[in-house]
Amino acid sequence: MDLDSLRACFSGRVLTKSADCEPFVLDWRKVWRGRAAAVAMPDTPEDVAAVVRWCAANRVSIVPQGGNTGLSGGATPDASGDQLVLSLTRLNRVRSVDPVNNTMTVEAGCTLHDVRAAAAEHGRLFPLNMASAGSATIGGNLATNAGGIEALRYGTARRLCLGIEAVTAAGELWSSLRSLRKDNTGYDLRDLLIGSEGTLGIITVAVLSVVPQPTQRVVVWIAIGSMQHACMVFQEAHGHFPAELTSCELVSAGAAGLVERLMPSARIPFAGIPPCAVLLEFSAGAHRHSLESDVEQLLSSLSNRSVIIDAVVADGPSQAARFWASREHISEAQARAGAAIKHDIAVPIAAIPSFVAEADRVVEREFPELELIVFGHLGDGNLHYNLSPRQGVSNDRVNELVQPVNRVVHDVVRRFDGSISAEHGLGVLRRDEADRYRSPVERQLMMAVKQALDPLGLLNPGKVLPGW
Amino acid sequence: MDLDSLRACFSGRVLTKSADCEPFVLDWRKVWRGRAAAVAMPDTPEDVAAVVRWCAANRVSIVPQGGNTGLSGGATPDASGDQLVLSLTRLNRVRSVDPVNNTMTVEAGCTLHDVRAAAAEHGRLFPLNMASAGSATIGGNLATNAGGIEALRYGTARRLCLGIEAVTAAGELWSSLRSLRKDNTGYDLRDLLIGSEGTLGIITVAVLSVVPQPTQRVVVWIAIGSMQHACMVFQEAHGHFPAELTSCELVSAGAAGLVERLMPSARIPFAGIPPCAVLLEFSAGAHRHSLESDVEQLLSSLSNRSVIIDAVVADGPSQAARFWASREHISEAQARAGAAIKHDIAVPIAAIPSFVAEADRVVEREFPELELIVFGHLGDGNLHYNLSPRQGVSNDRVNELVQPVNRVVHDVVRRFDGSISAEHGLGVLRRDEADRYRSPVERQLMMAVKQALDPLGLLNPGKVLPGW
Repeated sequence: MDLDSLRACFSGRVLTKSADCEPFVLDWRKVWRGRAAAVAMPDTPEDVAAVVRWCAANRVSIVPQGGNTGLSGGATPDASGDQLVLSLTRLNRVRSVDPVNNTMTVEAGCTLHDVRAAAAEHGRLFPLNMASAGSATIGGNLATNAGGIEALRYGTARRLCLGIEAVTAAGELWSSLRSLRKDNTGYDLRDLLIGSEGTLGIITVAVLSVVPQPTQRVVVWIAIGSMQHACMVFQEAHGHFPAELTSCELVSAGAAGLVERLMPSARIPFAGIPPCAVLLEFSAGAHRHSLESDVEQLLSSLSNRSVIIDAVVADGPSQAARFWASREHISEAQARAGAAIKHDIAVPIAAIPSFVAEADRVVEREFPELELIVFGHLGDGNLHYNLSPRQGVSNDRVNELVQPVNRVVHDVVRRFDGSISAEHGLGVLRRDEADRYRSPVERQLMMAVKQALDPLGLLNPGKVLPGW
Repeated sequence: MDLDSLRACFSGRVLTKSADCEPFVLDWRKVWRGRAAAVAMPDTPEDVAAVVRWCAANRVSIVPQGGNTGLSGGATPDASGDQLVLSLTRLNRVRSVDPVNNTMTVEAGCTLHDVRAAAAEHGRLFPLNMASAGSATIGGNLATNAGGIEALRYGTARRLCLGIEAVTAAGELWSSLRSLRKDNTGYDLRDLLIGSEGTLGIITVAVLSVVPQPTQRVVVWIAIGSMQHACMVFQEAHGHFPAELTSCELVSAGAAGLVERLMPSARIPFAGIPPCAVLLEFSAGAHRHSLESDVEQLLSSLSNRSVIIDAVVADGPSQAARFWASREHISEAQARAGAAIKHDIAVPIAAIPSFVAEADRVVEREFPELELIVFGHLGDGNLHYNLSPRQGVSNDRVNELVQPVNRVVHDVVRRFDGSISAEHGLGVLRRDEADRYRSPVERQLMMAVKQALDPLGLLNPGKVLPGW
């Protein structure tokens, strides 16, 4: 590989030493390790295009990468050592915030945290949020159509993006940076690239939608006796507060127990561990009267009808932050418990109790060595239906069980017309499994699109679709 | 054309007599007239697939059609007499409404009115609405990504659709009828087909998102002195009521004057005609306290600061309906005024006053025979920047001016980074004009997608993209 000609063709950095490349060839969970011919870090969208043109001319395949916080291996190069990692992290300018139009224009390498901070400076909220916001880039969020904890109210990354600029497989810059709410001037290439994990084009800039920053927040932990009642709580909260309910997060007894055992300072605020706990957040602007008292009225009504066991409303921002920490520390607790088997499934909300009952039954019967650690975005129908080893079970044993457990859980998801990949992307982790549940006609359509937009197959090969 | 073999291959109707085909070969505004070899009216999605397979085998091109209410000629066959009109109107079952999951599954030929009525029976709102709801079908709404009067609050048709089933160009049924809020299991084929006007596939069934039916409505007409102030009214209303502001419709003095002259019973409720009038609708569920008094407080504040001239709040549902009629009769008044030159443009909201000032200046200078009839969805930045003949100017003269006026207006739209086709689709009306403003790389990407999904070029040729 003629890296000198690569270096000469664009402005930015090229890393080739093994130690320099290390952070780019290993994912943050240290699950996937690859090798790279080099890491290119272009300075501008035009430089990204130049790198891609060089790759097309030299038939070098490209692995686009943002903050390298993905959970599905979508940004890790393969083991060949022939691939080029293309890091977008130097494209990190917030170009503009327009508080009248409620939009902002940002480069792909901006971290989600920086995007949110820039919006906040103008009294606006960019309503995508997740635990990895400090490192995850907006380009990666769009490439995977990320979800997170506010998707219930504001939608996933797709719904928050009005326009994009991207580099095509041929290394051309396609610019469609419109900040319009309505635009129907041809095929929806924007949404085709969003969620395609860099396999159809490389997003370099995006126009995002923002909203006025809410001024009121009410955060509540609720202890609940069953999944049926947890769903009732969601339905009533959503029915009464369709515009204010921002998050509805589920924590099962298994997940709460794990946090209590391994991270006691982050435990949920109840004396014992209830069968289910749900964290609700409501938010609104200044003109919404009596939000907190209305929420309390709903809680009383739920309590009087024995739908809930107990509820605690955060007494201010710092307790609200602690409430959220209990939810957000589950992944960390699961990491401390050893190897984990993770799922990122979604089913229709009405089907959640039946899905969980059925999946629990099958998993407990077939995999007694594992413990259920279920949590996630109940309001989106999106659960991280995870498992950890019971005490005494080795990590090696867990790793042996990954495939069979995935299969059993995903087969149940399929019976409920659900999705086996709700918000984390397919990457390499779910690539084959997603293909297994795909109809031949859908496979053919996706292959045709890939062939049309990346005829040389150089954009992130091996990700999303098998056989590329 | 062997119509006997067509008749034999599916269940449904085939029309061949000229009189029977007449309603399908002429659009409702009687602007485009074509000819058809026949009209096929299949009974089920499987029958749609059978018709498409027959067309593929016989190299017959297909014009899919719903309620035939389009404004851009997208559903009218060409003049050759070789095309088959494929009417989806017999696929008109509402399959299910799920009030817990807030979704419904409907066939493409259901009218928008029937979809809304079925949702309402379950206490739900399907929040897409437009004057043509009684005839327009949901399939057509999705194929054009329709907007309408509630898009400000709920988005266009695209955002309201969770899953689709469609027939591919090869006549295969691709089913992705998921009712999930989060699903990332491959490329976004759904959004690729939505807005493609039947040129990439034919939508047969859709899963739609619904919301709890609002129980409160506040409808207000406001008289305003300038476009700047009209935009301020929108911004303040949206800032204070982000969850409640459902519609924000603009009526310029020209449009209001035309209604007053030609349809006096539908005039806006002010003594004189103000420079601008804006119709606002706010809606909310039962738990939103004091919506009407909060709106009145905003109106007082705007009035005290001389941002508005006058405001009238509807005293109940029947006056609210009359208020809406004033807005909705503009198109009818324009039809009575003779030939019309229409635009369907969008610009960033902050740019509306400058856009209108600039476009008015150029149009008034270059086309003194025409009168500006500007109205539309101010809150979406989407204006129908229309023109009618002044008294004494002939329809023939207006028709001569269509192209030059389009060009001048669209060039101004372009300078403001706007869209020349916001919600009516490209069809044949805006096909070439949209292509004129398209970058070569965007044209190439769209052509590659079309080639990939419809290699024989039989799906609605001549629409959306020139050269197909």
